[in-house]
Amino acid sequence: MSLDSTKLEITTTEKPSPLEKKEDLKFGQSFTDHILEIEWTKENGWGIPTIKPYHNFQLDPATSVLHYSFELFEGLKAYRDSNGKIRTFRADKNMERMNRSAKRASLPTFDSEEFLKLIDKFLIVEDRFVPTGKGYSLYIRPTLIGTSVGLGVSAPTKALLYVIASPVGPYFSAGFKPVSLEATDYAVRAWPKGVGSYKLGANYVSCIEPQVEAAKRGHSQNLWLFGEEGYITEVGAMNVFFAFKNDDGTKELVTPPLDGMILPGVTRDSTLELCKSKLGKEWLVNERKLTIYEVKERANKGQLIEAFGTGTAAIVSPIDNIEFQNEIIKVPVDAGASGELTAQICEWIQNIQYGEEEFKHWSKVAK
Amino acid sequence: MSLDSTKLEITTTEKPSPLEKKEDLKFGQSFTDHILEIEWTKENGWGIPTIKPYHNFQLDPATSVLHYSFELFEGLKAYRDSNGKIRTFRADKNMERMNRSAKRASLPTFDSEEFLKLIDKFLIVEDRFVPTGKGYSLYIRPTLIGTSVGLGVSAPTKALLYVIASPVGPYFSAGFKPVSLEATDYAVRAWPKGVGSYKLGANYVSCIEPQVEAAKRGHSQNLWLFGEEGYITEVGAMNVFFAFKNDDGTKELVTPPLDGMILPGVTRDSTLELCKSKLGKEWLVNERKLTIYEVKERANKGQLIEAFGTGTAAIVSPIDNIEFQNEIIKVPVDAGASGELTAQICEWIQNIQYGEEEFKHWSKVAK
Repeated sequence: MSLDSTKLEITTTEKPSPLEKKEDLKFGQSFTDHILEIEWTKENGWGIPTIKPYHNFQLDPATSVLHYSFELFEGLKAYRDSNGKIRTFRADKNMERMNRSAKRASLPTFDSEEFLKLIDKFLIVEDRFVPTGKGYSLYIRPTLIGTSVGLGVSAPTKALLYVIASPVGPYFSAGFKPVSLEATDYAVRAWPKGVGSYKLGANYVSCIEPQVEAAKRGHSQNLWLFGEEGYITEVGAMNVFFAFKNDDGTKELVTPPLDGMILPGVTRDSTLELCKSKLGKEWLVNERKLTIYEVKERANKGQLIEAFGTGTAAIVSPIDNIEFQNEIIKVPVDAGASGELTAQICEWIQNIQYGEEEFKHWSKVAK
Repeated sequence: MSLDSTKLEITTTEKPSPLEKKEDLKFGQSFTDHILEIEWTKENGWGIPTIKPYHNFQLDPATSVLHYSFELFEGLKAYRDSNGKIRTFRADKNMERMNRSAKRASLPTFDSEEFLKLIDKFLIVEDRFVPTGKGYSLYIRPTLIGTSVGLGVSAPTKALLYVIASPVGPYFSAGFKPVSLEATDYAVRAWPKGVGSYKLGANYVSCIEPQVEAAKRGHSQNLWLFGEEGYITEVGAMNVFFAFKNDDGTKELVTPPLDGMILPGVTRDSTLELCKSKLGKEWLVNERKLTIYEVKERANKGQLIEAFGTGTAAIVSPIDNIEFQNEIIKVPVDAGASGELTAQICEWIQNIQYGEEEFKHWSKVAK
């Protein structure tokens, strides 16, 4: 059976939990009252979707997700607009990516539109958990895991697609706080023909040890380099952008191209589209390879204007400092705690997310 | 607290399950009656080790193992010797690797000797599940997962180290059956400075889709190539060996070196040590890079003698066929279903595993 949202069965909790104070919200720490689940078997396809009270999973110790990393996820948010409606932002892009990830992980794919309808219904059930206020949102975590039991290394014959959600506050609760990076070339996040462009759990585990090492040296994230050329790929678990000015007065916004090593971030894509659409003629917006050496050289010439990461959690995360081979590359943060463009992009995206500006139907009211 | 085997608490099942018929045993499908578990918290370290009746885990849907692949494992076996004793084979190598994996995965490390003592005690409890007969064994699966709850991408603050076990029959129940490989260059298993040399779940998920694709073309495994040079790295989830003869009558056994992309297999290491110790002077035993082009060229010259994979499950897995760029490289299997050396290595290793031959204290009686 294919995924069918009309078959949804809802059992609401008898013990609604109290809402946390907005100022106490921490990313991914407290969850809403329910979970959306759809089981899949190779034999019968997708089963009856259910929304039930949030509960633990009962997993056999030999379940495939625990041994061979049959797991992938998405991250998106629901926003409360000024009319009190719940909105999602480009959720179709998340579904497209989730299906790409599922295929690559030998897990079942699904009808994106049906799953989006189910997520909407889940959001309606969890309405009271979607906070009000710019910067506040309900973080939604669709997850797909392999649930067949057995130690043979083969494609799962059972799987579980589920959604949990966590109310979150602004990533930068007191305005932007720029981050310091360690340019990392002793560990490599992704490789050509590898799986770095898929949102698999497998891409995350190996990034923690280098992050802990960078933290010991006072940096909050890794700037992932690739190859002897020092190609810049991503920052922490975000895409990365650099802005340069040229001597002739033109400016360039650069992010690495989707060459198989880069996660095709929704905020990355939105940043590119918005900048191409809204920035003045002096700006070139380019997806192209760039190296840490170019960044260093142009910083030395005073041509590096700003740099930032993009991702669903923070939207943009300004960078003020990059350590590479014991040298510090200073990145200007002319608007105080970020560059002007960084702040501008954040505002553009937030305005669309909260329904204050219409742009290409990116924001949709849940119903 | 550090891991302490003397604190072990044992609760045996009240419902012992019937033993499966030896001919019905399938790899990793049925399990023994108990599970060995040790919880870890960042705050208190390793807790009280327990052996309890096999049971499901209760996992919150936001548990870190389900999202960011905080998971790793080992595979080793217990063998019944002719005196009825239970033996393990080089389990210290598995522990060394497991601790390496744990560190890389930002999961807690542990005292290997204490864990080995616990595994021995677990084996004594599960005595009746260790089958008799050459080729039969109890497959042991130590596993370590991150169990802290929350969606922040950071090192787990809780973890669970556990052991389950599955009685297994001979990998090749009716004598060797050589496998056909597809030399795979459109996907890569591992890369320099990546995590291919650690036994993380993350290394397995991405190998299934290419395996399914290879199967569609009639091949049972992928021969993983790396780089434009076509370096041979591994076969399926095994290490790989090639044997060549030279015009001067000398012979060479080659396996790729441990350059960070290769899993340091216990059977790989045992094969190298045994061959260095037992093969005649005409043999060179080398860890060196080799390419698919060398294999092809030497096969064409009649210099390729045999090829095989090594791993705990099969010990050796003979190869008779490699497809590369639409050409077939035939690999001789002169001893019928394998080469002579392949069969010899299998016998050497089995004799040690079952306690029929003493070699460097590789086989230890569980007590």
